Amino acid sequence: MNKYVIIVAGGRGLRMGSELPKQFLLLGGKPVLMHTIDAFYRYDADIQVVLVLPRDHQDYWKSLCSSYHFEIPHRIVDGGETRFHSVRNGLQVIGGTGLVGVHDGVRPFVSKEVIERCYLEAEQKQAVIPVVEVVETVRHLQGDESSTVPRNEYRLVQTPQVFSVPLLKKAYLQPYSPSFTDDASVVESFGEKVFLTEGNRENIKITTPFDLIIGKAWVEHQ
Amino acid sequence: MNKYVIIVAGGRGLRMGSELPKQFLLLGGKPVLMHTIDAFYRYDADIQVVLVLPRDHQDYWKSLCSSYHFEIPHRIVDGGETRFHSVRNGLQVIGGTGLVGVHDGVRPFVSKEVIERCYLEAEQKQAVIPVVEVVETVRHLQGDESSTVPRNEYRLVQTPQVFSVPLLKKAYLQPYSPSFTDDASVVESFGEKVFLTEGNRENIKITTPFDLIIGKAWVEHQ
Repeated sequence: MNKYVIIVAGGRGLRMGSELPKQFLLLGGKPVLMHTIDAFYRYDADIQVVLVLPRDHQDYWKSLCSSYHFEIPHRIVDGGETRFHSVRNGLQVIGGTGLVGVHDGVRPFVSKEVIERCYLEAEQKQAVIPVVEVVETVRHLQGDESSTVPRNEYRLVQTPQVFSVPLLKKAYLQPYSPSFTDDASVVESFGEKVFLTEGNRENIKITTPFDLIIGKAWVEHQ
Repeated sequence: MNKYVIIVAGGRGLRMGSELPKQFLLLGGKPVLMHTIDAFYRYDADIQVVLVLPRDHQDYWKSLCSSYHFEIPHRIVDGGETRFHSVRNGLQVIGGTGLVGVHDGVRPFVSKEVIERCYLEAEQKQAVIPVVEVVETVRHLQGDESSTVPRNEYRLVQTPQVFSVPLLKKAYLQPYSPSFTDDASVVESFGEKVFLTEGNRENIKITTPFDLIIGKAWVEHQ
């Protein structure tokens, strides 16, 4: 079965307190994005990697690949206006069958077990996303009021979100809506059910300087 | 105005993969719990610290204080069956006026600004808790189904949760309910409104080995 992963690295890292987009920052002497691609390559060396990057980041990325002797094959596609448009661009270059995962470029610590499980379960279920429990008390805001809700009824969503290729391609033919916060929401808006599986706690999104400190520590620990 | 903080350190750290309760593990060469007490002492050297510890941890804690020359004054109170009972025990040894914060012993990284803001706002508002936004997509489970909810309507709750002493004492006269997941829920069940203020992202609860790695990195960074 064909397996693809679309790695979305469109963010400009405005939250990092750094000019360099966060996917290019170094963790253990290597850019975040290379760790991310490595994770999928370790899962399956034959997986076809599509990297969605803003056009004006592509030369910089290529120079990084050269400097770091990064040789995992991947196809580069232009980023779009929003995450939705970026994923849609990525889908346009992949074949019509098999499974496709969509993964955030700034989630380098997804475990091999989680990737495996998402792809394996998607073979049967068509649409599988990794989630983790909420550790903190959760409050729901309603106007000026807020109230505690049962946190065991909530999950935090990670990536890779893995789908059958025909399903995701069809779902992405819908017109863009601001309610599309992730791929699961696009697929659900298309009327298909999405199944949950267990994610891994370390699979954080590196978006702030604190996340980068966490990331460096985790790389050193491994 | 009298200021108190009840630091709840009842947990036995079953989730740490370690025999030692997590509040006693070392961060930067010092037990977690000492970092936590330090944070409140740095905010106000006159704050009265009540430390709630299971009875069978107290000798160990005292020996740690001696070994580490830890000299911040604090009163030790026996832990109870649940967090609710522990806080109630702590409330029994404080005076009848002023402000009291309740803080998790395993949250050593609360910032001085957040402590200040919680106590300052509680002077007017009687009940103030720190919260942070949710970074991830949030799903709500309902039976076998689940759906994405607008994450900007949700907040993750931290501590210290700060209250007027008379209010919190009265609220803790209620009989225990399993729905009391934090002090805010006890106060709300008593019919009083709780106000939200901004927490700090690093103010994590150290409950897993991954959290400890994060904690060590943050201590080294500071």
